[in-house]
Amino acid sequence: MESASAFAERRKRSNEIVLRHAELPIKRFFALDRDVYEDGALTKKTKELLGLVASAVLRCNDCIGYHVSEATAAGATEKEIAETLAIALVVGGSITIPHLRHAFEFLESIETGE
Amino acid sequence: MESASAFAERRKRSNEIVLRHAELPIKRFFALDRDVYEDGALTKKTKELLGLVASAVLRCNDCIGYHVSEATAAGATEKEIAETLAIALVVGGSITIPHLRHAFEFLESIETGE
Amino acid sequence: MESASAFAERRKRSNEIVLRHAELPIKRFFALDRDVYEDGALTKKTKELLGLVASAVLRCNDCIGYHVSEATAAGATEKEIAETLAIALVVGGSITIPHLRHAFEFLESIETGE
Amino acid sequence: MESASAFAERRKRSNEIVLRHAELPIKRFFALDRDVYEDGALTKKTKELLGLVASAVLRCNDCIGYHVSEATAAGATEKEIAETLAIALVVGGSITIPHLRHAFEFLESIETGE
Amino acid sequence: MESASAFAERRKRSNEIVLRHAELPIKRFFALDRDVYEDGALTKKTKELLGLVASAVLRCNDCIGYHVSEATAAGATEKEIAETLAIALVVGGSITIPHLRHAFEFLESIETGE
Amino acid sequence: MESASAFAERRKRSNEIVLRHAELPIKRFFALDRDVYEDGALTKKTKELLGLVASAVLRCNDCIGYHVSEATAAGATEKEIAETLAIALVVGGSITIPHLRHAFEFLESIETGE
Repeated sequence: MESASAFAERRKRSNEIVLRHAELPIKRFFALDRDVYEDGALTKKTKELLGLVASAVLRCNDCIGYHVSEATAAGATEKEIAETLAIALVVGGSITIPHLRHAFEFLESIETGE
Repeated sequence: MESASAFAERRKRSNEIVLRHAELPIKRFFALDRDVYEDGALTKKTKELLGLVASAVLRCNDCIGYHVSEATAAGATEKEIAETLAIALVVGGSITIPHLRHAFEFLESIETGE
Repeated sequence: MESASAFAERRKRSNEIVLRHAELPIKRFFALDRDVYEDGALTKKTKELLGLVASAVLRCNDCIGYHVSEATAAGATEKEIAETLAIALVVGGSITIPHLRHAFEFLESIETGE
Repeated sequence: MESASAFAERRKRSNEIVLRHAELPIKRFFALDRDVYEDGALTKKTKELLGLVASAVLRCNDCIGYHVSEATAAGATEKEIAETLAIALVVGGSITIPHLRHAFEFLESIETGE
Repeated sequence: MESASAFAERRKRSNEIVLRHAELPIKRFFALDRDVYEDGALTKKTKELLGLVASAVLRCNDCIGYHVSEATAAGATEKEIAETLAIALVVGGSITIPHLRHAFEFLESIETGE
Repeated sequence: MESASAFAERRKRSNEIVLRHAELPIKRFFALDRDVYEDGALTKKTKELLGLVASAVLRCNDCIGYHVSEATAAGATEKEIAETLAIALVVGGSITIPHLRHAFEFLESIETGE
């Protein structure tokens, strides 16, 4: 698996390519996508876990890696992430298992600092 | 829209039909589906919001109604539910809008006790 | 729930509307959609169960009703249908539960001849 | 089927409920969702057909009804809509057939003014 | 493409990572996911084909590889697998074609023992 | 990222593997999948953009690469492709962002002739 830091690097480079070609609607969407996870009635940590479970049931590895990083940075523990992924598994079924594998491998990559 | 109480009644009746025909694997799944939302590292309230965002991005109105009920019963405020649904909208796109309509109409039905 | 016979009637009427407007590609697709379930290396019965599990994980009630009818007509037992739906539930997760409800209610409607 | 005019009425009422509860992110999304279909390098008519094919493969009847209305109002002919739906069928498979039924019934409802 | 044996190795290693972090609900799901394919009213072979068609329409290559392996081990012929995939293609549309490519390449990898 | 020309090569080789194993229904589907994008009431260019938006909301990178190539060959400008992808983003949500990245990187690969 690509390490957490290599993923962050690739994601940044790719977003630059998108924004080089994108016009206003895509830029407005990107701003909204950043603002919606900010502290409000729910904390940023909870919102990142909401983003994680949504990403897992929709089966998007890049999105999972991003929200595992953000949730961890906002203080989510390994146990909270595991409980979030258990809900994703029950809601989304065995088809989400390859994405649970990705999530836990990604989490290990963050923990080992690779 | 079917009221929150009529929905609860229909859901109960339908589940009885499933369990009348189902054998062990389906019964084990139903038990797991109940247990995964219990208090743990995350509270039941947070887990119900996780179930809600997953249901909204997967666009399942029955699941949305159920998790709005459970989240509300576990103490989630209207504002917390609205922030959860805003994340569902950004992650899942305009295709989730009919389901946001359902969620807010369902929430109003709970609040008015109908 | 709409009865099995009312569903069959509505489905027939709706398909006539589609075919009134459709040109060649849609007509060719409809022919292919009929032929792919015919007896081959696998029997029609097994193929209808394949159609049923695919419809259940993709969460399409109209498709579920159709394949429950066809599978039953091709000799599938209630137990075989229940095992097919158990696989759909494990693969597709709790989000498929409303569709299992529909499948079993539809099956009861066929059995009672309503 | 609900007529085109009854659908438009229900959709308007439901959106009012959403906007009564929604805060800034949802309102910003709704504005973006309106602006992205405006004339640009592609005409509004073509953009509505893009919205229609996306709605059909994602299997959202409310979204299909809306884009059939908008595409028709922007000058799309029945034949252009039928070709758009043929692509949806080939890309999205037989699982989209119930939604093609809805699209053509909705189109007839517009044409007869009901 | 990763060979069938390399895939089996990677899958085993990844599942160990999941189970190292997972608590009871995920372990119970994994047990259920194993038991649901056992012989019953339907044979294990038929159940693996049901798992295959579900995996193909949900477009999960890892799941496809797993069920092609299991179906083949349970006695499914190449022709039975091809008929299963034809149903997946008709139900799921052209969007499944990249996954049919994966399935047939994986099958060739099993047949050549690589 | 795999270059546009390497992708075209791999796609061709993989399709040969499919057609070596496939029987009549799959071959008929492939023919239909080719014919549905031909000039009609809508031009081939518009139809390729319809295929692109459908591929983007269904999140299939191989399909996106193919339709970006075909749309470009049929005369679609970078701006038309960007507007098509903006609609995909609004309809399909942030979960499509990794696929927008792929689409724009693929477009750059075509433009630089790599």
